[in-house]
Amino acid sequence: MGNDLESLAEFARELAFAARRETLSDCWGSVAVENKLASGFDPVTVCDRRAEQAIRRLIEERFPDHGIKGEEFGDRPARGPLSWSLDPIDGTRAYICGLPTWSTLIALLDEDEPVLGIIDIPRLDELHLGFDGQATRWMAGRPRPIRTSGCTTLAKARLSTTDPDLFSAGEAKTFDRLRRNVRVTRYGLDGYGYAAVAAGGIDIVAESGLKPHDYQAIVPVVRAAGGAVANWSGGSDLSSGRIVAAASEALLEAACRLLGEA
Amino acid sequence: MGNDLESLAEFARELAFAARRETLSDCWGSVAVENKLASGFDPVTVCDRRAEQAIRRLIEERFPDHGIKGEEFGDRPARGPLSWSLDPIDGTRAYICGLPTWSTLIALLDEDEPVLGIIDIPRLDELHLGFDGQATRWMAGRPRPIRTSGCTTLAKARLSTTDPDLFSAGEAKTFDRLRRNVRVTRYGLDGYGYAAVAAGGIDIVAESGLKPHDYQAIVPVVRAAGGAVANWSGGSDLSSGRIVAAASEALLEAACRLLGEA
Repeated sequence: MGNDLESLAEFARELAFAARRETLSDCWGSVAVENKLASGFDPVTVCDRRAEQAIRRLIEERFPDHGIKGEEFGDRPARGPLSWSLDPIDGTRAYICGLPTWSTLIALLDEDEPVLGIIDIPRLDELHLGFDGQATRWMAGRPRPIRTSGCTTLAKARLSTTDPDLFSAGEAKTFDRLRRNVRVTRYGLDGYGYAAVAAGGIDIVAESGLKPHDYQAIVPVVRAAGGAVANWSGGSDLSSGRIVAAASEALLEAACRLLGEA
Repeated sequence: MGNDLESLAEFARELAFAARRETLSDCWGSVAVENKLASGFDPVTVCDRRAEQAIRRLIEERFPDHGIKGEEFGDRPARGPLSWSLDPIDGTRAYICGLPTWSTLIALLDEDEPVLGIIDIPRLDELHLGFDGQATRWMAGRPRPIRTSGCTTLAKARLSTTDPDLFSAGEAKTFDRLRRNVRVTRYGLDGYGYAAVAAGGIDIVAESGLKPHDYQAIVPVVRAAGGAVANWSGGSDLSSGRIVAAASEALLEAACRLLGEA
């Protein structure tokens, strides 16, 4: 898929920019949200839906054979190996609070394997793209190759997770063991945390409860930047939704040694 | 101090821009930090110090009678009623992780009472200024008046605190009681959380362990935007460092009813 993947990467950036036109609008910071759950709180805004529709429209026009799996609408089956996994607004809670670190996640899947990912942070004008060993961050439109920090030692690592309250009691205890072994811990980043691993600012992200549209885009970005992604036991099957991303294989192993003991 | 305060506000913005020249540099996202503590981790970068020096230099040149209380250097006594309280980088942990939500906090004190505050977010190009019932946010250089959301109900409130691990066991229990009564909770914002209250995105911030240079700048910003600031018992003495800021007096009272029961 060599050259093909280059042009699909260009197309994926177009998808992200189409989503920006919807997400960087009046919705941002608005409390006019719907709750998707009968009990609990799972917010969605009209801008989530508009952004996903804008992306779907472009895919349907250009690649009618590609499948689409979006967070907000039903699956569109593929006629061939390729499909797209979409999360128009990852971090809707940050979004409805007018905060900057929500993102648009776009993955290209080849037979369900993510081969290209975008983590776009519209409010920061930071777009992260990874495929095939190449990871790039566009800041204010200017591309620069990115690499993880390469950190290999827990004692020096900068750890992040979005929200400690999302952990089960067992997960919270396990995460806390990891937290007490690292240098510093930051919260509240959603998909941006993985982009920060790829760009070298954060060294480990550990989260649970992630859905495929939450993690499929981040895998190619982190790996192409030299990082590693696995489940909390260190395995490659991410379907449990317990994800750890790290700046190096050695750091991933060290983290999983603590996380996997749950 | 009417007109005087207008021109001091203009000067305070100059101070923030002088600090930006130092903070938006190579330090940001660098792990080349010093630890101020023998045990624990209290990071400071060379850019903290350079930014504070840049601000102090401008104050000493223009207002040699004004006092200066900075986070990184010693106090400069005032010859008169006015002095400045400075935190060149609030959120150094975010800063060393290359994250966007660190801030520069600048307060003007009249006989130790903060009468003007700036919360500047250099990476977002968002400067928040509050004094004398006027609150303004400059985004990308364009000023707009800001107001809190006016939210009065815990059940609808968006709550934030920087880091739940910074609470004592008793404080954590108390905060958790508040958290379970609000709509959504976000972490990781440092001084930006208070700016978000003033701008209407967040409705409550509750934190502990704050030093005067952490809270003096935020008081005039939040109050000028229509919000309220108090200690966790609802009192006006903030020296305990247990601070709550809210979008309205009614919301502050509702929050303190839970927080004050510690």
